[in-house]
Amino acid sequence: MTDIRRVTVLGAGVLGSQIAFQTAFEGFDVTSFDIDDKALDAARERFAGLADTYRREVSGADDDRVTDALGRIASTSDLEAAVAEADLVIEAIPEILELKQDTYRRIGAAAPEKTIFATNSSTLLPSDLADSTGRPDRFLALHFANRVWQFNTAEVMGTDRTDPAVFREVVEFASEIGMVPIEIHKEKAGYVLNSLLVPFLNSAAALAAGGYASPEDVDKTWKIATGAPLGPFQMLDIIGLTTPYNIMVHGDASAQKLAAWLKENYIDKGKLGVASGEGFYRY
Amino acid sequence: MTDIRRVTVLGAGVLGSQIAFQTAFEGFDVTSFDIDDKALDAARERFAGLADTYRREVSGADDDRVTDALGRIASTSDLEAAVAEADLVIEAIPEILELKQDTYRRIGAAAPEKTIFATNSSTLLPSDLADSTGRPDRFLALHFANRVWQFNTAEVMGTDRTDPAVFREVVEFASEIGMVPIEIHKEKAGYVLNSLLVPFLNSAAALAAGGYASPEDVDKTWKIATGAPLGPFQMLDIIGLTTPYNIMVHGDASAQKLAAWLKENYIDKGKLGVASGEGFYRY
Repeated sequence: MTDIRRVTVLGAGVLGSQIAFQTAFEGFDVTSFDIDDKALDAARERFAGLADTYRREVSGADDDRVTDALGRIASTSDLEAAVAEADLVIEAIPEILELKQDTYRRIGAAAPEKTIFATNSSTLLPSDLADSTGRPDRFLALHFANRVWQFNTAEVMGTDRTDPAVFREVVEFASEIGMVPIEIHKEKAGYVLNSLLVPFLNSAAALAAGGYASPEDVDKTWKIATGAPLGPFQMLDIIGLTTPYNIMVHGDASAQKLAAWLKENYIDKGKLGVASGEGFYRY
Repeated sequence: MTDIRRVTVLGAGVLGSQIAFQTAFEGFDVTSFDIDDKALDAARERFAGLADTYRREVSGADDDRVTDALGRIASTSDLEAAVAEADLVIEAIPEILELKQDTYRRIGAAAPEKTIFATNSSTLLPSDLADSTGRPDRFLALHFANRVWQFNTAEVMGTDRTDPAVFREVVEFASEIGMVPIEIHKEKAGYVLNSLLVPFLNSAAALAAGGYASPEDVDKTWKIATGAPLGPFQMLDIIGLTTPYNIMVHGDASAQKLAAWLKENYIDKGKLGVASGEGFYRY
């Protein structure tokens, strides 16, 4: 068992609210920080929505447990107060380098020495942020996936300055909140999941964009050969085409060609995936 | 319904025997060719083994249907006689360019003009063989996966000289023998499946070889995130490490580094995958 009891989650957006709720659901006292009253109101709605979702989708999530979880979440828009007694701070604020660095400088000054800082950033490396924390030995990435109660991986990734004992403690904490910890022992952009997904989805897109095979036939092939429930184009539709597009645009020349294809044939036509009612398939 | 009634399968090795048996099982008259009496004896054993496997694993494969299938397979070591009345010849002989070209020259002279030729080659492109057939308009690839009754994709891929009507007929024939046809409209090394699998498995191998994450954690991540029953390292173990190794060795510099890693840590230690009792996992 870890020494972590009090957890502060910075940012109560889609993922921050899920991390806070899941952590409270597993019995921890959670402080949820967001920037102002309006953001806190939105957070309260998110928590209420998550309570409903857990009741429906999570086994063992009866009324009592869900109500207890809600009761364990305190909200505040005072950043310094939010971290004053935290054992662990999980940062899930917008993916803007300067904003994150500034936030780490502030909480680095306000939090006790013992406090561990973890970033949920998908696009920045922890080494981009380590200096601004003032405690690089107690800083690492703890990366969640959307719908944490279902896609319950927690990728743990330090920098070369992270204390191995802190790494181990966060791995154990991830298990304690019902996640499957995925240990990443050297910094890697994209962690494990995107390191697999990006080349896989790009190779699928290249087959369709190059006129080799239809999305339907590519998906059929993958599903029959591997027993997977979803082919790559079905995955793209679920993810939504905008995120893969943004990754492709920042890739190499062949990835940029795929981005242009995706934009012209799908995104510009409003075919963004499941959420928009149509992507590679109709929903 | 196609005009294809009589099918000749050249080569009665692992995949050739499966193609022949599956085709006969679906009601076609099949001629199975292999080079000599010894090879034909081995083929008979394979067909008997397949009959048992179908009884166990294929729904609707009762004694009568399996016995009927066996009865529809004629065997011969006379190449010219084997193709003399064929509507379709499926070639599944060893992956040696000269051997295949020589075989196509011989059957090109011996088969009726109407006969369609299809290669099951995994590693050669049909355009490598088209000239030697003497009938490039009636020649294409029809590519099966091992355990055709379970992994029932049939990738159909012509050259730019293949008659579109022939392409369509072979697509329809693939359905008639219980396969899911995968239409590939431009030549592509690796067809659809390996175009997806190779970058996917390479990116997984790169995570483990680079010391980023363990095979177990990589597999967990993929399975949780995508709902797939198998992670990439489990797939590698099932495929057997030798084939991916051979593909990596012929890849670019980074693929060759992965090949060296695979050889040193697994293949040289006899860890070849499920078939050898150990690969990335113990069985």
